[in-house]
Amino acid sequence: MVSVSAFITSLLTSFVIFVVLVVIFTNLSQRKSNVPVYYPALLLKGRSPPDLNVRRTPWAWIKEAWEAKEDEVAEIAGLDAIIYINLFTTAVKILFWTSCFCLPVLIPLAATDKNNKLQAADPTKSANFTSLDNLTMGNIQNRSDRLWAFLIGEYWLSFVTFYILRQTYKHVTDLRAKDQSNVRAKLEQFACLVRDIPPVPNNESREEQVDSFFKRVHPGTYEKSLIVTRLNKASKLWAELETAKSQLAHAQAVFEQSKCKETEGNPVSRPTHRTGKFGLYGAKVDSIDYWDKKIKELKPKLAEEQKHVLTEEQRGTAVIFFNSRGAAAEAGHVRHYPFADKWEVLSAPEPRAVVWENIHVSFYQRLVREKIVYLITFFMVLFFMIPIAFIAGLTTLDNITKYLPFLKFVVHIKPLQTVIQAYLPQLALIIFLALLPKILLTLSKAEGLVSQDHLVRAACGKMYYFVVFNVFIGFAIFGTLFQSANSLKQLKQAGAISVSSVVDMFGAKLPPNGTYFITFVALKFFVGYGIELSRLVSLVIFLIKRKFLCKTEKEVRDAWAPGSFGYMPNVPNDLLIITITLAYSVIAPLILPFAFAYFGIGWVVQRNQALKVYVPDYESGGRMWPHIHSRILVGLFVSQITMLGFFGVKEFPYTPLLLPLPFLTILFATICHKIYYPSFKYVAIAVVSEEVREVPTLSSVVAAFTPSCLLDPDEVNDNSKYEDVNFQDAESELSPGTSSGIASLADAPIAAASA
Amino acid sequence: MVSVSAFITSLLTSFVIFVVLVVIFTNLSQRKSNVPVYYPALLLKGRSPPDLNVRRTPWAWIKEAWEAKEDEVAEIAGLDAIIYINLFTTAVKILFWTSCFCLPVLIPLAATDKNNKLQAADPTKSANFTSLDNLTMGNIQNRSDRLWAFLIGEYWLSFVTFYILRQTYKHVTDLRAKDQSNVRAKLEQFACLVRDIPPVPNNESREEQVDSFFKRVHPGTYEKSLIVTRLNKASKLWAELETAKSQLAHAQAVFEQSKCKETEGNPVSRPTHRTGKFGLYGAKVDSIDYWDKKIKELKPKLAEEQKHVLTEEQRGTAVIFFNSRGAAAEAGHVRHYPFADKWEVLSAPEPRAVVWENIHVSFYQRLVREKIVYLITFFMVLFFMIPIAFIAGLTTLDNITKYLPFLKFVVHIKPLQTVIQAYLPQLALIIFLALLPKILLTLSKAEGLVSQDHLVRAACGKMYYFVVFNVFIGFAIFGTLFQSANSLKQLKQAGAISVSSVVDMFGAKLPPNGTYFITFVALKFFVGYGIELSRLVSLVIFLIKRKFLCKTEKEVRDAWAPGSFGYMPNVPNDLLIITITLAYSVIAPLILPFAFAYFGIGWVVQRNQALKVYVPDYESGGRMWPHIHSRILVGLFVSQITMLGFFGVKEFPYTPLLLPLPFLTILFATICHKIYYPSFKYVAIAVVSEEVREVPTLSSVVAAFTPSCLLDPDEVNDNSKYEDVNFQDAESELSPGTSSGIASLADAPIAAASA
Repeated sequence: MVSVSAFITSLLTSFVIFVVLVVIFTNLSQRKSNVPVYYPALLLKGRSPPDLNVRRTPWAWIKEAWEAKEDEVAEIAGLDAIIYINLFTTAVKILFWTSCFCLPVLIPLAATDKNNKLQAADPTKSANFTSLDNLTMGNIQNRSDRLWAFLIGEYWLSFVTFYILRQTYKHVTDLRAKDQSNVRAKLEQFACLVRDIPPVPNNESREEQVDSFFKRVHPGTYEKSLIVTRLNKASKLWAELETAKSQLAHAQAVFEQSKCKETEGNPVSRPTHRTGKFGLYGAKVDSIDYWDKKIKELKPKLAEEQKHVLTEEQRGTAVIFFNSRGAAAEAGHVRHYPFADKWEVLSAPEPRAVVWENIHVSFYQRLVREKIVYLITFFMVLFFMIPIAFIAGLTTLDNITKYLPFLKFVVHIKPLQTVIQAYLPQLALIIFLALLPKILLTLSKAEGLVSQDHLVRAACGKMYYFVVFNVFIGFAIFGTLFQSANSLKQLKQAGAISVSSVVDMFGAKLPPNGTYFITFVALKFFVGYGIELSRLVSLVIFLIKRKFLCKTEKEVRDAWAPGSFGYMPNVPNDLLIITITLAYSVIAPLILPFAFAYFGIGWVVQRNQALKVYVPDYESGGRMWPHIHSRILVGLFVSQITMLGFFGVKEFPYTPLLLPLPFLTILFATICHKIYYPSFKYVAIAVVSEEVREVPTLSSVVAAFTPSCLLDPDEVNDNSKYEDVNFQDAESELSPGTSSGIASLADAPIAAASA
Repeated sequence: MVSVSAFITSLLTSFVIFVVLVVIFTNLSQRKSNVPVYYPALLLKGRSPPDLNVRRTPWAWIKEAWEAKEDEVAEIAGLDAIIYINLFTTAVKILFWTSCFCLPVLIPLAATDKNNKLQAADPTKSANFTSLDNLTMGNIQNRSDRLWAFLIGEYWLSFVTFYILRQTYKHVTDLRAKDQSNVRAKLEQFACLVRDIPPVPNNESREEQVDSFFKRVHPGTYEKSLIVTRLNKASKLWAELETAKSQLAHAQAVFEQSKCKETEGNPVSRPTHRTGKFGLYGAKVDSIDYWDKKIKELKPKLAEEQKHVLTEEQRGTAVIFFNSRGAAAEAGHVRHYPFADKWEVLSAPEPRAVVWENIHVSFYQRLVREKIVYLITFFMVLFFMIPIAFIAGLTTLDNITKYLPFLKFVVHIKPLQTVIQAYLPQLALIIFLALLPKILLTLSKAEGLVSQDHLVRAACGKMYYFVVFNVFIGFAIFGTLFQSANSLKQLKQAGAISVSSVVDMFGAKLPPNGTYFITFVALKFFVGYGIELSRLVSLVIFLIKRKFLCKTEKEVRDAWAPGSFGYMPNVPNDLLIITITLAYSVIAPLILPFAFAYFGIGWVVQRNQALKVYVPDYESGGRMWPHIHSRILVGLFVSQITMLGFFGVKEFPYTPLLLPLPFLTILFATICHKIYYPSFKYVAIAVVSEEVREVPTLSSVVAAFTPSCLLDPDEVNDNSKYEDVNFQDAESELSPGTSSGIASLADAPIAAASA
């Protein structure tokens, strides 16, 4: 239903915006002062940013992103980023090969037919079509032999997808294996989480219980355990102490600055603040003295709480440590106890990714929580319009004046009335959609998952089904229905309404939706990637913070800290585009070049971001891939089902020939799941049995898994715990697995000392 | 539709048969000559049968079966037999507790209502009911408040089933753990099967490839490997040699006998036979000379073939051996290689249970075969009547005379005609049903399963769905339809046919089917257990063989060899009875006492058989239980769905209150699967880390896993390979897992010597 001129206008507008943003990026990224915004990853990794004294060509960043080898990117940005970029690679490959058939064959076939013309000429139908609609399958006449080409197109699409997906899965599995067999061993490769430890028997401490169990089961490889405790109070104290410390540093910096600026009319003044919330009320105090006193108060409190926690707040959960990667991987895979509700052992996630709050959730709670969360998600996906409509209903003018009478005077301004009535419901929707990722993350956390990366994947999964169902299927179905409301009315008046006439109409309106989605994709990539690349928001925030708020080095560093890739809204959104494209690539092949551009430009932009901007918060070892893989297959499945329906509408007598495709997709998914998934769920033992050259010391592994709030506050330099690992060269005569791969207990482990 | 008198007649008849068979059993089992038939297990285990000189009371066997402790039974009959008997225990418990509510509450409620009377009085309906039908839910009037009691009954049934099933699963898991942690270690606990080994790299032999892989991955615990070869020709030669040996022994025995009987008129004659098939034609030869020559010919041939096989016929499959139970259990659980289509390692089944032919089936073949077998089974379950009808159609008189003209003269005899026309179709059905277990076992074997016990379980599963669908659901639905054909015709003639009238009729006819099933159950247990206990067929066969065929000790032993429990037709049939009972226990509670009797008598009889008759061919470690557990839950699920439908028919307004039940069943099944199933699929490591006191030597483990046809024919005493294991006491200072739990390579392993 999008006219050609409107289509071209919106396309041109977004293209212009894109060009402007790229020009802005090229310019701003040349300035030395902006280096922390455009090259933060390089700074954090201790690499030098490009030489900005030499004028860089506008396409220098494209060249660098293009030429970087996958290994280099992996080294700088980590495996997870590579996996994410592989999503783009895969999409580009699938779309390229699909285009090879669909563009040169299907578009001419559609353009030279005349179904739309016939429909428009039919006085009983109120059809109107644009010239773009003439390039879609909708323009093929019913029962035409030309439909054979479209049928072949769907087969071509399916097999191309199978081939590319399998190739990528294999490639990605290899990448993961390479990452895990790295000669520089990772900390978490020596640890496992233990949950659901049964109650402590009499005359034994929790440590003794855990140690005696695992020493018996894994003699020779088990090193020690760290009992996980409830930390609510300790972590609160720790956070308070951290605030106090940074506030003290801030106050001192302000004081120093003020000293430097000392002039006659401007005597040195010690910084002060009010003690109430946000410094808005309360007594005025000398900041340096106040925070200094606060720190002195908090430290013994924390120390006491730490002692209390370690003795009193132990629950049935522990981290256990092994002396070889192989032993830890095996322990994280096998069943230890005949009853699965006791002694569950999991491979440990990266220490920074552990969700400590969720570790204590018991077996039965996990079961119940999972079910409840699934149920809530299911209803949210299906009926999300209902609460929105409810909110929209609440925000009508009458209700506002009724429940929020103090807003009356605003409401009675005429022009505002119109705005409120027109936009409030949309606003409610927009706010809800903006909150959605947070809501889904909270829901996933409530499931009781123990690692951040798992939590993000779970939320991505929910979000995917949400957007596919509501944006895509919802739009396709309801959009068609609403657009056709008029025709329906006419038919009703003519008394000619019947199932077949509705199906007819539906068939006629499905391809035009394709044009809508083409605009959707085009808008998304031009504007989206422009904003992503230019980092305007981050730049502005950084500039404001540096100017007005940051006084210490650390505060400046925090201001430009890039964070990691935003997988949570990105992955499901990219997958939505793939799903839409796969579904429409045969019905309206014109979508293919746009989707190709989306993923092509995305590939370059995201590689640039991976190389120069984002720094991962933690690594999941590429576990996102199985998730992406199966969602692409869901997209293909949707496409095949849509085609089955649409061929039915077209009354093509050989439609049943499409029936094997959905079954083939399920079979393909099963095979891939069987072959590749296990090594993503668990660690393949052969891989971690490779020789290790750099192994962390036991004490550094234990320290990494000790929650910060249990460490000595004077010895910790925040957040660098994971990075500053003591590695030791493995003596070459030690073959991994047989004897100690990590340092023995001799170097005093922190937890043992503090326990 | 069964009248009371017919019901009582058939009940009495079968009871009389049962009593007669028990009397026969009591008498025959007193005779010394019958000891090998009634106490073979005791003989084989080297225990003495009961003293038959003292007259045993007729209920002595009941007392013995009743009083035996579960541990004793397990020791004599093995864990699998105990698991099977637990099926009876569980059923008895469930039925007892269900009866506690259903019999005293529901039967009086049904008996004092009058729906059937009203229906019979209604001239528009052609209903007729017996007094048995008045004891069922069918006699409750529509929308009656009495239906509340039946609704509570269904809830009671469900929760009783949940409680008992959970209790048993826990008990059975404990039994399995105890069995696996036995201080006397089993041979297979030290071995794993390896499949899908990738092609041999150049310059390496298969052995070197396997050894280098596992030595790297499991250093310190891996001992050695045994490459599995294709054995078709070798096993054929081996079988020929075995035949020749036993024939020689037979001929020599005959000759000895003839010498003893030497009289004047009866000179010693050397035994002779003809060389053709079955000794029916061909040249007459001296048997002793002939077989002696044959053996001398075959031995070098076999030796040559053994050498050839070991070098040339190696495939990508091996058995690997570890030095501790824990290491083997871990290896059998974890993933070894990132791609699951290579280096698959499985915990080894018991050597006698290995299906050597299936070990070579590759990953992709297994995938495809499984799918095809499932598809075939699905169609067989759904449409098994079609081939039967086809065969029945072929066997009409006309077709017989047409295609088999030589049978014409038979067909033209009048009385035979009637018989053929009446019974041939039934005969086809009976033959098919008799062949069914064999067909299903063959199908399961075609799936590529590697152990006999898995194969039996797979076939049991298929059989269960077959009998439930065809006997139970098929009968209930189609039986109702056919019985109602007349009423349908009447309704049609009256022009009053409608969905609701059909539903009405269906509701009216469902409970009477209950009476049919009561008869079914009663007949089954009285006659079935009578035959099982009296072992008349085995006795007759044994007597005939001993009299006419057996000449050597071994032949006699083979003649009374009892075999193992026939799990294959028994388990699905018992589960069918449970399913029927659960489905009807609320609709027609009268079924409960009969089903209780079925499982009660079954419990005593099967314990007797376990203690005194059957000897297991192999042990699966109780893996049948998860299978039984989930099938009982299927039965419960069917019951709940049936009730939902039937309450709907009764127009009970609170029917939706039943809706949670099926969901609860699914939830319960999920929880049990999560908690208990893993330790049936894999071995819990903590269990096999228990101390081992008696360990087999490595050479005996290797020998047990070497197919007999690769052994030296002079050194093997057949079938006793698994039993005659050399055990050694584990030195007490060796803690399992750390150092060699089984004898080192010092005692020359057989395969290495022959390779």
